[in-house]
Amino acid sequence: MIGWRARLGFLVPPGNPTVEAEMMRLAPAGVSLHFHRMVARGTPGALDGQSERNRMMIDNLDGSVELLAMVQPDVIVLAHTATSYELGREREAGLIARLEASSGTRIITAFGSVAQALARLGIRRLALGAPYSAETTLQGKAHLEASGFEVVKFDNLKGVRNIYDETAERAYGLARTVDAADAEAVFLSGTGMPTLSVLELLEADLGKPVISSASAMMWHALRLAGIGQSIPGYGRLLTLR
Amino acid sequence: MIGWRARLGFLVPPGNPTVEAEMMRLAPAGVSLHFHRMVARGTPGALDGQSERNRMMIDNLDGSVELLAMVQPDVIVLAHTATSYELGREREAGLIARLEASSGTRIITAFGSVAQALARLGIRRLALGAPYSAETTLQGKAHLEASGFEVVKFDNLKGVRNIYDETAERAYGLARTVDAADAEAVFLSGTGMPTLSVLELLEADLGKPVISSASAMMWHALRLAGIGQSIPGYGRLLTLR
Amino acid sequence: MIGWRARLGFLVPPGNPTVEAEMMRLAPAGVSLHFHRMVARGTPGALDGQSERNRMMIDNLDGSVELLAMVQPDVIVLAHTATSYELGREREAGLIARLEASSGTRIITAFGSVAQALARLGIRRLALGAPYSAETTLQGKAHLEASGFEVVKFDNLKGVRNIYDETAERAYGLARTVDAADAEAVFLSGTGMPTLSVLELLEADLGKPVISSASAMMWHALRLAGIGQSIPGYGRLLTLR
Amino acid sequence: MIGWRARLGFLVPPGNPTVEAEMMRLAPAGVSLHFHRMVARGTPGALDGQSERNRMMIDNLDGSVELLAMVQPDVIVLAHTATSYELGREREAGLIARLEASSGTRIITAFGSVAQALARLGIRRLALGAPYSAETTLQGKAHLEASGFEVVKFDNLKGVRNIYDETAERAYGLARTVDAADAEAVFLSGTGMPTLSVLELLEADLGKPVISSASAMMWHALRLAGIGQSIPGYGRLLTLR
Amino acid sequence: MIGWRARLGFLVPPGNPTVEAEMMRLAPAGVSLHFHRMVARGTPGALDGQSERNRMMIDNLDGSVELLAMVQPDVIVLAHTATSYELGREREAGLIARLEASSGTRIITAFGSVAQALARLGIRRLALGAPYSAETTLQGKAHLEASGFEVVKFDNLKGVRNIYDETAERAYGLARTVDAADAEAVFLSGTGMPTLSVLELLEADLGKPVISSASAMMWHALRLAGIGQSIPGYGRLLTLR
Amino acid sequence: MIGWRARLGFLVPPGNPTVEAEMMRLAPAGVSLHFHRMVARGTPGALDGQSERNRMMIDNLDGSVELLAMVQPDVIVLAHTATSYELGREREAGLIARLEASSGTRIITAFGSVAQALARLGIRRLALGAPYSAETTLQGKAHLEASGFEVVKFDNLKGVRNIYDETAERAYGLARTVDAADAEAVFLSGTGMPTLSVLELLEADLGKPVISSASAMMWHALRLAGIGQSIPGYGRLLTLR
Amino acid sequence: MIGWRARLGFLVPPGNPTVEAEMMRLAPAGVSLHFHRMVARGTPGALDGQSERNRMMIDNLDGSVELLAMVQPDVIVLAHTATSYELGREREAGLIARLEASSGTRIITAFGSVAQALARLGIRRLALGAPYSAETTLQGKAHLEASGFEVVKFDNLKGVRNIYDETAERAYGLARTVDAADAEAVFLSGTGMPTLSVLELLEADLGKPVISSASAMMWHALRLAGIGQSIPGYGRLLTLR
Amino acid sequence: MIGWRARLGFLVPPGNPTVEAEMMRLAPAGVSLHFHRMVARGTPGALDGQSERNRMMIDNLDGSVELLAMVQPDVIVLAHTATSYELGREREAGLIARLEASSGTRIITAFGSVAQALARLGIRRLALGAPYSAETTLQGKAHLEASGFEVVKFDNLKGVRNIYDETAERAYGLARTVDAADAEAVFLSGTGMPTLSVLELLEADLGKPVISSASAMMWHALRLAGIGQSIPGYGRLLTLR
Repeated sequence: MIGWRARLGFLVPPGNPTVEAEMMRLAPAGVSLHFHRMVARGTPGALDGQSERNRMMIDNLDGSVELLAMVQPDVIVLAHTATSYELGREREAGLIARLEASSGTRIITAFGSVAQALARLGIRRLALGAPYSAETTLQGKAHLEASGFEVVKFDNLKGVRNIYDETAERAYGLARTVDAADAEAVFLSGTGMPTLSVLELLEADLGKPVISSASAMMWHALRLAGIGQSIPGYGRLLTLR
Repeated sequence: MIGWRARLGFLVPPGNPTVEAEMMRLAPAGVSLHFHRMVARGTPGALDGQSERNRMMIDNLDGSVELLAMVQPDVIVLAHTATSYELGREREAGLIARLEASSGTRIITAFGSVAQALARLGIRRLALGAPYSAETTLQGKAHLEASGFEVVKFDNLKGVRNIYDETAERAYGLARTVDAADAEAVFLSGTGMPTLSVLELLEADLGKPVISSASAMMWHALRLAGIGQSIPGYGRLLTLR
Repeated sequence: MIGWRARLGFLVPPGNPTVEAEMMRLAPAGVSLHFHRMVARGTPGALDGQSERNRMMIDNLDGSVELLAMVQPDVIVLAHTATSYELGREREAGLIARLEASSGTRIITAFGSVAQALARLGIRRLALGAPYSAETTLQGKAHLEASGFEVVKFDNLKGVRNIYDETAERAYGLARTVDAADAEAVFLSGTGMPTLSVLELLEADLGKPVISSASAMMWHALRLAGIGQSIPGYGRLLTLR
Repeated sequence: MIGWRARLGFLVPPGNPTVEAEMMRLAPAGVSLHFHRMVARGTPGALDGQSERNRMMIDNLDGSVELLAMVQPDVIVLAHTATSYELGREREAGLIARLEASSGTRIITAFGSVAQALARLGIRRLALGAPYSAETTLQGKAHLEASGFEVVKFDNLKGVRNIYDETAERAYGLARTVDAADAEAVFLSGTGMPTLSVLELLEADLGKPVISSASAMMWHALRLAGIGQSIPGYGRLLTLR
Repeated sequence: MIGWRARLGFLVPPGNPTVEAEMMRLAPAGVSLHFHRMVARGTPGALDGQSERNRMMIDNLDGSVELLAMVQPDVIVLAHTATSYELGREREAGLIARLEASSGTRIITAFGSVAQALARLGIRRLALGAPYSAETTLQGKAHLEASGFEVVKFDNLKGVRNIYDETAERAYGLARTVDAADAEAVFLSGTGMPTLSVLELLEADLGKPVISSASAMMWHALRLAGIGQSIPGYGRLLTLR
Repeated sequence: MIGWRARLGFLVPPGNPTVEAEMMRLAPAGVSLHFHRMVARGTPGALDGQSERNRMMIDNLDGSVELLAMVQPDVIVLAHTATSYELGREREAGLIARLEASSGTRIITAFGSVAQALARLGIRRLALGAPYSAETTLQGKAHLEASGFEVVKFDNLKGVRNIYDETAERAYGLARTVDAADAEAVFLSGTGMPTLSVLELLEADLGKPVISSASAMMWHALRLAGIGQSIPGYGRLLTLR
Repeated sequence: MIGWRARLGFLVPPGNPTVEAEMMRLAPAGVSLHFHRMVARGTPGALDGQSERNRMMIDNLDGSVELLAMVQPDVIVLAHTATSYELGREREAGLIARLEASSGTRIITAFGSVAQALARLGIRRLALGAPYSAETTLQGKAHLEASGFEVVKFDNLKGVRNIYDETAERAYGLARTVDAADAEAVFLSGTGMPTLSVLELLEADLGKPVISSASAMMWHALRLAGIGQSIPGYGRLLTLR
Repeated sequence: MIGWRARLGFLVPPGNPTVEAEMMRLAPAGVSLHFHRMVARGTPGALDGQSERNRMMIDNLDGSVELLAMVQPDVIVLAHTATSYELGREREAGLIARLEASSGTRIITAFGSVAQALARLGIRRLALGAPYSAETTLQGKAHLEASGFEVVKFDNLKGVRNIYDETAERAYGLARTVDAADAEAVFLSGTGMPTLSVLELLEADLGKPVISSASAMMWHALRLAGIGQSIPGYGRLLTLR
């Protein structure tokens, strides 16, 4: 049976090409992955219009969750970090609760996974890098601080034409740029910028934990689905239960 | 860039867990896969109500295609064989033409891929196995014959509770059951029944080409997207340009 | 010489296809495996009539042991867990003693191996999963308790048509179902249900030892035959002397 | 499901340790092996008393077949070459026909497999090596000739204390001894003498096909069970359909 | 001894980071690589000022060759395609002859290697892709035509900020863009744009030879140095003597 | 992008064939290597005239650094140990400071890297082996002592015709010769004598750290460029941050 | 250069086929092996006449050593355990001293290596197994005791026709036979009986160090030649310096 | 049993370190190698005194053969090419015949193997390279011509201090030097100069068969001993029967 060990569902922004590619690299044997695109219009990945696209996705979440729940996933991941920035902590909590009730499925967000991951790693002070506009990056910083973390340094990726054209090599450079001596870890925000192939190298080079939205949401989804297996090669987070 | 060599989009029935798992096994380096669930309600994979679910998916195809097209795939695959049986050849052709025009993306169906694959292999007489009800299986046979193939033997899988719980091992047995001396190839219909892991073994054991909806639609999508690479291990079809 | 390091003999229920397949995966270099079917009639693997089949096998054990002993095994394993439930502790001890005396060969049972394995792992409280009828499962629980273990949670596999058609994937699900926070280990009973391929994954996911009749009887047979080698990949038991 | 591709049953002389070990090396994925010991008494593998042991096994074949058939094998192999020599061609044919009828299972013999294998390889003139007494070896030669083959050279292995203690290295030497320029192939008789690990080397060194009872009976059983897969590493026979 | 089989020297534009990286992937055992930077000033890799940089490198070639010759290479490669376009065929021939005489070392150019490679592959009609400005690309086309080849389609890479930031993935797209049905091969010009990792994929996808300045100059240098070894994985050229 | 993780530049004596070959073995993924030859004349690698060649290289360093800096390396390594002996500590410090200022690039020397490496390993007393003349070897010893190390034993390689023809096997012998019980480590000086392939073996055989100019300068360059990755197989130094 | 790391010489009884085969399995990279046969007559490997053959080898040792020393080994091993039993400790010491003086080469014996190995492992009480006659085995026991070890159990291999036909599988059985609870280690004497392939398995099964003449003499020779490398797979001795 | 497939004996000049090292690389499974040193005095491997050393070895051959024959080899190889040059064809034939008669073992020479190998490859015109003095090289040329081959080009290795210190890398260069367009093959004479690791590379680079004394004598010995197995990686000769 497909997904006999666990099934994980992911809701992705419609133009985001990255989540599927990165999650496929991480899935252990017996864990199947299922995807559905949220409803949005406009130019995918452009820095402009991101807020409107975020709101449109949020407004249509009920229908999106309903269809994805039909494949009976153990967990559904809302694979978009900036949605959480848009909603704020309280509205997000309410929305998730309502969707879980209607679908009968556990639902988590990318940002919620990041917060859990940082807690699991025992991190309080961190550096933040993101491929967003300066404004959205500030929102991200504020959201982290509202969640009890201290952001000792942060920056956004320069020269972005479209988030979805970015590469993990550029994410590597961004992480090197935002790292600081007093940061206990580096967090690369955004599910649209590929990061998996550089997390392990960054940890070797920076000597501290480096997580991304991608590594955090897979770690959180697996652990909630009862999969405790260590997945080496993508940073120490995924080797922890 | 994700999918720098090609991006392939797949529209799947909402409860179908198989297409994502099987397509991931076949994608060559640089080819990214993107998924979206079609709109349907009812018990996924049950033999009852399949026609209604088929019609609902067809009725909502425009919206489904629009969202999936936002990730800019080279080809979109309608990954559901029975849809073609439902529509018939002419209505399907019209629908596809309209969707291609509106989305600006090449669209193919699972069944259309099968027909192309059989032609590529030079097959005229074949055996058919399917996990459907007897009625849908007969529709499949009729559709193959309307497409110019001779179905020398056919049967449906016995004891199906839910198509989506089936295994490739059972598909192996089905192929052995329907094979006949005068069949030049065996075709296993249905994207919900896993088949990839047994295609190569079946070819070794039956001594003839064995294709499934899964192998045919990946082969067809890749070749249309300009990817000529041989993918060994899943039957001879995927080793041909 | 075949079996120069050790020879292990297994007496299996005649319709049981699983013991041979699973034991072959575990045998280290130089250890040969030898099989003989016990005498029984009726539908193999059916939940009905299991008691009668058990008794028939027990009644014919002398002849079965005599023939298998001709290949000069270091140990003979009575590879049927439910036989022990049928016999009870005392009658089993008497039977084994008599057979050892007549054949001059060390004889152990699947259940006896499980008790030894739990002791080796230092387990007192465990969860029990079995593919049997509810009655036989209760017998198993009682037998464990009579052996000094506390069964904190237990269940039988639902929807079994024939034990011998079951899969390790279903055994995985059963173990997840019966696991409980206060269980120090999970025990999957029954030599007819395949378990080997999921034991290591279950230990990773549940974070505690998981043993089955299969892993326990190979571990016990090897250690009695003087083979101390660690066999990784099937749970921590088989890595212990 | 265990043996989802095919199940093969083997009836072995009770003291024979070799058949199980050698068949395990050859079984392809999805093919399960099941064993049962025939009824015999006396010193296993000794050259003395072989005829009586043969007769006893033959007399009890009905019960042996009945029990092994309970695991529902596609084919049952009577894994003892000398039985055929004992019975002669006609009596053997009658016995097999009766057993097939009563058990509803296809039954083949080691020697019958050898004859099929030689035919498949297009061999008419061959050399014969055997671990038997001189008398039994002559019986083997006569049986081959009665089956239409010409035995251009033959010999038995010298210095045998017990067939079941022999090694493949000694079988290599035997094959080198009996080979002759006008032999188109070499046949090593007897399922008790290990041969598999030297067949490929012998073919490399002698430059002609080399088969044994072991390679022939697995080849024949697989092909009858519909398994056409090539199994490299044990001589060219097992690479042919 | 370092380079006991052959030593190859490469003269590279000072800001070019690509030649060293790509040549290291191709060097067979016993062949050592040695590098020296030609003299130029200005912004490396910018499309502007390329002609002046070309001329400066040419003017200082004598000194560059003298120093690189001290490591006693079997062949020196002038690893810059556009130099040949700048010089024209006659002046280049004269320059090379003079440098060979003064240094006592065989000297070849990237473009000369391309012409040899196309001849070896039997190509007359080809497609051309380049990362240059439109003007330089036209120069390249003219130079190919002056050398007797027909350029059936050509284009330059769009959106280049700096040639040295380009990726092989973009080179893949360029090759797909310029390919045409009547092109017998595709040639990717320019040693600054990485190409090696996509040549084999391009050949699989386009079904025809695909060479680049990099593959051609290593092939030519090796063959002149007497190294006939096939180097698989980078297009068929490097598998030919 | 080539060298997206780091770019390392190396200035090598013009006739030195060893630095390029050895550095290529050590570069981790994403780290690119770039080379330029310093200006010198005379017979490369000969023991005679080494001082004059050293001075000529030093006199032309500004131009050499300028050209190599055009490829934008994170660090430039002056890959010649004896240059430091020639300059002495103070003049070297001044020269490096001036070149760093003019080029805007971090510049290190082979000898400076050795001193850092010894400090990192906590070594104070060491043995020294070199392929130089006796005089230059004494210079090396004095330079080490001036840097605060105690040289408990030292020797130069006997029978050198040309340093650049030497082998790592001979370097192994040299290290065995100079090792002493009270040496905490062995240092093999000189970038022209290959050493990488024997460092790990030497550490196994001598039971203490063994470094060479090659291993030290790569370790130092990587760490300065922010690359903390462990590179196993070349002695313990390269496994330390 | 052949043997650039070390050269080891072995003097073997002329009919002994085992030493060469076993030493080849153990030699690390860069260590060459050189062999010479001692002078003896009679049936090699027979239990009869061993003493005379021993004496003849001893009488001709000077010439044997002289020839083998011409290949300039770092150490010469007298690869015959029973020679030491024949000579006794004092005469052996004198002989070795004289030969070392005349040849200028370090000379060790198999038995001397065993004594060193036991000391290195910290063993005082051991079990002894040997392929010799009962008398020679007793000599071996006495020699061990004279060297300060306690032999808690010992036996010779039964059924030996010729030592040189024995197998490592039989040596495994011998070790199992002589092992005792109070033995801290097992020693398998005799360079003619193969043991290497079972030492690691024996350690796994017996849970204590198991050495043989073969493992001891290679360990001792390597360590004396300054090779400290760990050689895994043949018991813990060879992993110690 | 050691050498159960074949045993090969080699008589080597006492100071020759190369034959043992090279033969060990070539021996297939089940083929054991046994060595004995011929009697000679003087400086091993020196070009001076080679004739006297040759004569001394020849004079003592009877005793050398007698001892080596005690290990019961299938073939004894006189592993010294120059011996044949010394003896001439007739005297060699007589000597070999006498030794074969006395020892009852097949005896071959390195040069005789070369002649057989050239015949097997169908070579008549060849190039000759040797590490000898000019005089001995001329003897080799004359001996080849007396055997019916045409030597189109030949040379000896320059700068030899001692043959036994030479490397395969130098042998590679020698082969490149002596190769000529009209040579159908290259032959590297002399068992003291290592050649095995470069034969395959030379064939790739020169495009014709390249054999050495080493490859020829192993090929000849194996084929005479009835071992027909292909040994890839050392030139095409060893892949032929």
